[in-house]
Amino acid sequence: MKITYLFGFILLMNTVFAQKEDSIQIASIYKNALNSTIAHKNLNYLCKNYSERLCGSENAEKAILWGKEAMQKLGFDTVYLQKTMVKHWVREKNEICNISSTKLGQFNANVIALGESVGTSGNGIEANVIEISSFEELKKLGREKIAGKIVFFNFKMNNDYFMTFHAYGDAAGYRVHGASEAAKYDAKAVIIRSLSLISSKNPHTGIMRYDEEINKIPAVAISTIDADSLSTWLKNDNNLQIYLKTNTKFLPETLSYNVIGEIRGEKTPEKIITVGGHLDSWDNCEGAHDDGVGCMHAMEVGRIFKDLNIKPSNTIRTVLFMDEETNQRGGKSYAEETKSKNETIIAALESDAGGFTPQGFSIDGNESQLQKLQTWKPLFEPYGLFYFKKGWGGVDIHPLKEQGVPLIGLIIDSQRYFDYQHSSTDVFEAVNRRQMQLGSGSLASLIYLIDKYGL
Amino acid sequence: MKITYLFGFILLMNTVFAQKEDSIQIASIYKNALNSTIAHKNLNYLCKNYSERLCGSENAEKAILWGKEAMQKLGFDTVYLQKTMVKHWVREKNEICNISSTKLGQFNANVIALGESVGTSGNGIEANVIEISSFEELKKLGREKIAGKIVFFNFKMNNDYFMTFHAYGDAAGYRVHGASEAAKYDAKAVIIRSLSLISSKNPHTGIMRYDEEINKIPAVAISTIDADSLSTWLKNDNNLQIYLKTNTKFLPETLSYNVIGEIRGEKTPEKIITVGGHLDSWDNCEGAHDDGVGCMHAMEVGRIFKDLNIKPSNTIRTVLFMDEETNQRGGKSYAEETKSKNETIIAALESDAGGFTPQGFSIDGNESQLQKLQTWKPLFEPYGLFYFKKGWGGVDIHPLKEQGVPLIGLIIDSQRYFDYQHSSTDVFEAVNRRQMQLGSGSLASLIYLIDKYGL
Repeated sequence: MKITYLFGFILLMNTVFAQKEDSIQIASIYKNALNSTIAHKNLNYLCKNYSERLCGSENAEKAILWGKEAMQKLGFDTVYLQKTMVKHWVREKNEICNISSTKLGQFNANVIALGESVGTSGNGIEANVIEISSFEELKKLGREKIAGKIVFFNFKMNNDYFMTFHAYGDAAGYRVHGASEAAKYDAKAVIIRSLSLISSKNPHTGIMRYDEEINKIPAVAISTIDADSLSTWLKNDNNLQIYLKTNTKFLPETLSYNVIGEIRGEKTPEKIITVGGHLDSWDNCEGAHDDGVGCMHAMEVGRIFKDLNIKPSNTIRTVLFMDEETNQRGGKSYAEETKSKNETIIAALESDAGGFTPQGFSIDGNESQLQKLQTWKPLFEPYGLFYFKKGWGGVDIHPLKEQGVPLIGLIIDSQRYFDYQHSSTDVFEAVNRRQMQLGSGSLASLIYLIDKYGL
Repeated sequence: MKITYLFGFILLMNTVFAQKEDSIQIASIYKNALNSTIAHKNLNYLCKNYSERLCGSENAEKAILWGKEAMQKLGFDTVYLQKTMVKHWVREKNEICNISSTKLGQFNANVIALGESVGTSGNGIEANVIEISSFEELKKLGREKIAGKIVFFNFKMNNDYFMTFHAYGDAAGYRVHGASEAAKYDAKAVIIRSLSLISSKNPHTGIMRYDEEINKIPAVAISTIDADSLSTWLKNDNNLQIYLKTNTKFLPETLSYNVIGEIRGEKTPEKIITVGGHLDSWDNCEGAHDDGVGCMHAMEVGRIFKDLNIKPSNTIRTVLFMDEETNQRGGKSYAEETKSKNETIIAALESDAGGFTPQGFSIDGNESQLQKLQTWKPLFEPYGLFYFKKGWGGVDIHPLKEQGVPLIGLIIDSQRYFDYQHSSTDVFEAVNRRQMQLGSGSLASLIYLIDKYGL
């Protein structure tokens, strides 16, 4: 019995000692993250020089070259580009949505074409509009009421949820599928209320999808303030006319790249921890929160390891993914290449929820991986991270799931995310330096632990 | 034994049932907070119509009348003003700080007089400047090096801390006592680096204090960007000249007010739960984060209780305190009056840390009160509140401590607070609606529990 006690005591002391040692290392990681302004300057440079990085665009390509150079400057051991084909959809700016009423006058609403939507013809579309707040309502009204009209989906994101991504989940279906659902009843076009919880004149774009069996009709997002005005006008005049004009097209598919930087592992370099964000953005913004910050977080992991002379056992691989916003081809190419090379990815981490204060991690893995993650929780509580739970990993790393890789997402305070996401307000100035830095410290600390103890 | 088990089981079930019932009520409180735009509109009105609410000023008085009317409109049972005398210090704007070098040229730095500091004479002060980064250094240099010069305290807030209030705590001494410390060695004036963690051209003011035994010299804050420039110039020219001109004065003490609104308790109305923020602000800003939001939080408690028809056992008393920024006379008057009336204050809560995402509560009370607070933690975790710990209550409620009242402060994400505090950027637009609303829900929920279970 005594020996058992002693053994237990030694184990306990080892754990206490390890936790103490780890807490010191993690403190130095956060301190380093909070005191380096490199990532903040890099984000500024990326946003101001290569904004509107929609995949396939010239700015996306320039950002790729910049990303490669930036990681080389940060001292990654290896930096390279990984090929991926991407679609190249373009949207002519200054779309028109003129709303007119014989009773009330007229106003130009702020709209933006949804990603990969077709445009109106050169002369635009003129039609009556009908407001719908659910797919059920659309079905109930049927072809008789819908045919020939512009359908205005005015589904408001729900304020009730604490995590705003849940409200986004509820509402995103209208943006993604609204056009094909309305086209089933011969609508001429759709106008979708922007996915945002604030009152704003800025429309928010985002990807949409057509059902290939159904007629493709134009789809735009309208700003929340203009959605409210349109709704009010419809209550006073159900015979409103809308003139809508957008011009969108696909250019040929193009070769693009994920940007990859590696810190070579000292003991088992063939084993890899992947951490990434996505370099592409929508074509109407600087893509600061979505997802310039995620790229900075991933790059900072390497910079911090180098700066603190932390020599990982496994290879730490930072990936700036291309094409998250539209078809996730970068993420798929990455997963395919790891598979074809038979690489061992110990874990994949992603930051794609903005540059606000981090709150924890969600893991898309098995029960024992979750439990291991949770044993590290006390090490993160001094930095405000309390969530260590099962959940979503990330869009870009998701294709790795079928190889059995545990996926981990950085959970970030979501209250303000949809104020900016996919709108022209998603700019460098909307990112707070310290909040972003805490995200870098969080990811680097977790990767330090995964590298040391496995997952 | 069986009876004991049964008794234990009943107790357990009662607790489970109570927690379930409480979690439902708290969910409805947060939902109400997140769906009402009244507080956001009130904050907008207050900030845009009665900005620069320094105590004693016309705008502070107008804000008091507005606050009374606003609480009446919200349906408080009783609304009244509580007298308090306040000092009335004024600062003439467009202060001048011209930095000139025979080698480098000249620039006008952005400065602002510190609260209650004396001004320069009408002609201003012209002198050499010396940079100091600690009181120890000041002492070491002594009269010989300091006399006749302007002392530039360039103490940088420390990025290392997770909670930025700790960095503020380290640095605030230079703002508060810098002038008298430098005057001991016959300095002519002091320039203090603004208490902020960001690079900005906006200076941040705040209260300072003179040692009455020592000569009073002018004190200004300089923006962090200009502090860095001044420091760089000093490295290249140690013979810089500064021309400083400020004009400040005290007008006669004036009668002012705390604004108080009450929801009368149904069972024990003589027992009171106090919740407050402060209505005064500095004279260079809208006082949105500091502390318009705190006032909205406190007012929302009453509005939510009324809206949800929650009938408290005890009286809920919302106090918009006057004069937090300078001499805390409102808080003192409030404590004096509760004492002279022999009132029973069950608990006093304060929100004065900005309108960002709430993270928990700190309690300045005894061990059993802390433990009781901690039993409620699981009810708040779904809303992101994880801190339930011993700590600071608040400046305005602090005078209640000597009556043995437990004091509770709302802990709010502190990362961005010092970007705005006491500077012209502390405006309505810098407050996010949802983040503010979560604070209202948090305070109302905790008060619901304190009212029901005591503390």
